Amino acid sequence: MCQLLAMNSSKPAALDFSFAGFTRRGGDTDEHRDGWGIALHGSDGCTLLTDHLAAIDSPLAAQLQRNPVKARNAVAHIRKATQGRIAPENTHPFARTLWGRTWSFAHNGDLKTWRAPSGGTYQASGDTDSEQAFCHLFNTLQACFPGGEPSHAVLRTAIEEVARDIAAHGTFNFILSDGERLFAHCSTHLHYVIREYPFSVAQLIDCERSIDFRQHNHLDDRMAVIATHPLTQNEAWQAFAPGELKVFAGGAVLAEAAPQRAVYIQISY
Amino acid sequence: MCQLLAMNSSKPAALDFSFAGFTRRGGDTDEHRDGWGIALHGSDGCTLLTDHLAAIDSPLAAQLQRNPVKARNAVAHIRKATQGRIAPENTHPFARTLWGRTWSFAHNGDLKTWRAPSGGTYQASGDTDSEQAFCHLFNTLQACFPGGEPSHAVLRTAIEEVARDIAAHGTFNFILSDGERLFAHCSTHLHYVIREYPFSVAQLIDCERSIDFRQHNHLDDRMAVIATHPLTQNEAWQAFAPGELKVFAGGAVLAEAAPQRAVYIQISY
Repeated sequence: MCQLLAMNSSKPAALDFSFAGFTRRGGDTDEHRDGWGIALHGSDGCTLLTDHLAAIDSPLAAQLQRNPVKARNAVAHIRKATQGRIAPENTHPFARTLWGRTWSFAHNGDLKTWRAPSGGTYQASGDTDSEQAFCHLFNTLQACFPGGEPSHAVLRTAIEEVARDIAAHGTFNFILSDGERLFAHCSTHLHYVIREYPFSVAQLIDCERSIDFRQHNHLDDRMAVIATHPLTQNEAWQAFAPGELKVFAGGAVLAEAAPQRAVYIQISY
Repeated sequence: MCQLLAMNSSKPAALDFSFAGFTRRGGDTDEHRDGWGIALHGSDGCTLLTDHLAAIDSPLAAQLQRNPVKARNAVAHIRKATQGRIAPENTHPFARTLWGRTWSFAHNGDLKTWRAPSGGTYQASGDTDSEQAFCHLFNTLQACFPGGEPSHAVLRTAIEEVARDIAAHGTFNFILSDGERLFAHCSTHLHYVIREYPFSVAQLIDCERSIDFRQHNHLDDRMAVIATHPLTQNEAWQAFAPGELKVFAGGAVLAEAAPQRAVYIQISY
């Protein structure tokens, strides 16, 4: 199994504090030492880093903590391999282009007996169930919306339907970002916290480190941090409900639109 | 078009000096500013970093220069996109697993009309001719050697034959490494230099920086650096001949074995 960490922010922001606690779970306070990866979405593209080393032993993870790269969206993953070797093409996050933008995807869980239908434009380069699920999602979206990107509400419903379909076969906690929005789906464990005015002091659970966000933020800064399990002991982390999909934009939870007319998802293509 | 930089070393070594000159070509002294990437092969795996930013503007490239990650093999690439958008799945190096090891691959050139045959285990996740060529090479190797890895001499001949076949359709300068050996194929431009005892002083061409390798190396250190064009002005860079494949191991050029019995390469699978 694995753990997820993600950020969606109103402005480009550093993830160093949360990332510092998260990486401790990559071989120190927890057993997820079979590699790690992060996708950092900038204004016009994506930086992707995947590492075979345990996050606590990785020089690049240490450098990212000391000199964080600012991003509006970040998707990170630490791995405990249950099947498949530790290799770049099996290391989350995965990235693909859809509707002219780069999307990144990371998954926590085991899809056991699920197999993606064959065919479609998006093909897995490794052999994880996670990358197959990501490709299947994008093949489905492409087949459903041949005219291009639908409205946000319709897209959200479509992603929810594909997530529900796949989650019926196993555990499917995932984070998906297109560089603007961040979609987070919970099958079993997923939590989030919104850091905004009035900011407070936070203390990491996994190491002796605290931060006074009042010293580091402006009035209009706002950031959502999403993680498999809460990273701090004195913030109001909210648990997702099983089966729930939340969408974050501008550092906040996007309200759900009124129920949409059902979208027909063509799963075979 | 793009440029390549690679290293093969007898011991884990830093690529910071050569990398510093190379990154200047990513938007400063040359026009290759459409992203960059590097694969660093450690003792038991691979770290892969791909970035949409120009190498000279990238915070991660700057960090890698200041705090280089040591590796025995490194494969780096700076891109000037001629077709296809700047996206992680289109950014070199690409990585795949073959015979239980992670291999990385970067390509400089344009294969124009060449298309990979369909089918095979290895599938491209992006839409570059380069990743298709890499997948085609691995599909061919897998089909030719169903019993597993052949001897080095037979493998080398097989790679040479596939390279010749693909290079007939365009420009196919490439670097391929399995973490031990580094295969470098020249279609048009590729150079290498061996840094070994007695070490000397080297001066970068692309910026005001020199290094006295005598101060930084032991008697038994040896390192091969391969680049599209020479990076220093006072070292004995050797040009590859068009059509030539060289293999580096332990920081030196591996001698070619006696001519092998022809290997039958089954291109269709």
